[in-house]
Amino acid sequence: MRFTIRLAQVSGAAVALSLAAGTAAFAQTDPLPSWNDGATKTAIVEFVEAVTTAGGPDFVGAADRIAVFDNDGTLWAEKPAYVQLFFALDRVKALAPEHPEWTTQEPFASVLKGDMKGALAGGHKAIAEIIAATHSGMTTDDFAETVAAWFSTAKNPEKDRLFSQMTYQPMHELLDYLRANGFQTFIVSGGGIDFMRVFSDDLYGIPPAQVIGSTGQLKFELQDGVGPVLIKQPEIALVDDGPGKPVGIQMHIGQEPIFAFGNSDGDLQMLQYTCLPEGPSFCGIVHHTDAEREWAYDRNSDVGKLDKGLDAAAADGWTVVDMKSDWKTVFPAEGNN
Amino acid sequence: MRFTIRLAQVSGAAVALSLAAGTAAFAQTDPLPSWNDGATKTAIVEFVEAVTTAGGPDFVGAADRIAVFDNDGTLWAEKPAYVQLFFALDRVKALAPEHPEWTTQEPFASVLKGDMKGALAGGHKAIAEIIAATHSGMTTDDFAETVAAWFSTAKNPEKDRLFSQMTYQPMHELLDYLRANGFQTFIVSGGGIDFMRVFSDDLYGIPPAQVIGSTGQLKFELQDGVGPVLIKQPEIALVDDGPGKPVGIQMHIGQEPIFAFGNSDGDLQMLQYTCLPEGPSFCGIVHHTDAEREWAYDRNSDVGKLDKGLDAAAADGWTVVDMKSDWKTVFPAEGNN
Repeated sequence: MRFTIRLAQVSGAAVALSLAAGTAAFAQTDPLPSWNDGATKTAIVEFVEAVTTAGGPDFVGAADRIAVFDNDGTLWAEKPAYVQLFFALDRVKALAPEHPEWTTQEPFASVLKGDMKGALAGGHKAIAEIIAATHSGMTTDDFAETVAAWFSTAKNPEKDRLFSQMTYQPMHELLDYLRANGFQTFIVSGGGIDFMRVFSDDLYGIPPAQVIGSTGQLKFELQDGVGPVLIKQPEIALVDDGPGKPVGIQMHIGQEPIFAFGNSDGDLQMLQYTCLPEGPSFCGIVHHTDAEREWAYDRNSDVGKLDKGLDAAAADGWTVVDMKSDWKTVFPAEGNN
Repeated sequence: MRFTIRLAQVSGAAVALSLAAGTAAFAQTDPLPSWNDGATKTAIVEFVEAVTTAGGPDFVGAADRIAVFDNDGTLWAEKPAYVQLFFALDRVKALAPEHPEWTTQEPFASVLKGDMKGALAGGHKAIAEIIAATHSGMTTDDFAETVAAWFSTAKNPEKDRLFSQMTYQPMHELLDYLRANGFQTFIVSGGGIDFMRVFSDDLYGIPPAQVIGSTGQLKFELQDGVGPVLIKQPEIALVDDGPGKPVGIQMHIGQEPIFAFGNSDGDLQMLQYTCLPEGPSFCGIVHHTDAEREWAYDRNSDVGKLDKGLDAAAADGWTVVDMKSDWKTVFPAEGNN
């Protein structure tokens, strides 16, 4: 396929234009209308103004305005489980007719019985087997089409809302605000790079080349009657989580960020890499404190555990977003994202 | 170190502004003044006009205007050997005092005696050992500083000209022309990604994030009294050559290019990946035919062998640049690049 598969091309999902256009008109009044006034919003705005003030002591040229964002739990919701895990489980069900052996083979047998607890009892090994079985063996184009089709209708089971509508409105505004100020915005996520690229441009205005994620090996083939393809392999090239995040940043960007946002201990090293060196920098953490509008969790959560990160934020002066008090709204109005 | 090491910051080398500004003024008259009029230049200009003509049958939106360029032999000279090999050999000499064992251990012993033929007699294995010994064990920042310092004075031994002055003037103009027409320009080279990023922005106007190359593993460390660093490891993450080039393109860009330029069989799969699918595309090959101004070589060369690529170009209708007849000038005027 010649061009990148984008959601808008393959689905009738309510995936509309990004908010970039919508918020531009308000930029002069309030660039972050969904953020309540207070220390958090002030810290963001003061940092952006400092690094973009030509001649100021903290000025940073546009070429060095690199901003990195975790995805799960930072740009969109990650509860009750990662979106990509729901995709993988649905793929196990869809592929089951081709794999009769799965009816007795764990973790697939439990998945097919709808027993998620049993399926995930095998921990990382079980998840790795599920990912390998559902994320390799096909071309990158076929994989992208499968993700796009799934994503157009898949919903968060607890909120009964399309996953594409579970992004955070305040973070959309923050991405737009940074880009309007000359930043390049990158996703740096433990999620799969080929998975996220299907929706990153439509959801966040982040093109495929600015998506960094966990990456599987690929194999080039020139197939008769088909042409050149890349086959997704089960072997892992990069685990873009924890200490793998600075590695992914260096491999893909080759520059140290000056702005980073995460929400869990998996983001700790990315935040350290961004904010411990001298010079102007901003590190933010989305703290999930809103059990009513979203979910409330931190130090003891199975998904998105935030423990060391909270301690580091306090020690290093990073900005912790209190979702409940800092955000006027959490999700975009239905139909936007 | 906070910001990317760039040549201009660390050396007094004659690394001036890119030609982007210089050629912009001529864009309306002749965007490619160093290219002789003829079929090659016409093919390039007609392609760019076709994909940028809104409403035309071959129009391609700016987001999909991805152009990829090999580096060695395509953007700069690769004879008598790759620039990076000269760097590695010089590093062996510089590091020898710390490695007394090298005086008797091949391939290092031959390098230290100035016996290049002996040093390279071990083939790929010998080169891999030299690269591992000189490209790993240090932080990415230290490596970049070392490359920048070396690059500021290192010369091509046959032409007695700074390597930074051995870029191709017509290719500078082509990069500028494409960018002026909304293309994103990427390097996709078998050369080391961390090596090329030191000079890619200064030489070609290509920022670090748009450089794809062979990549070593990295290890994140939070060092006491130093802070976060990335240590270059001897293990290889990506060999960005031959079938590895489409893999590197997918991993870094996530989109198929519509424009590709190479010069050797190591670029064959990148050209196939770009030009065999349906839709508008352009593939070019720099054919080294100018023994007087540069070097003349193709099917039987040890460096930059072009054999299958010439056959594929004929079969698939790719554009072959005859350096001798298509290029008015080869290298930039001294002091420019």
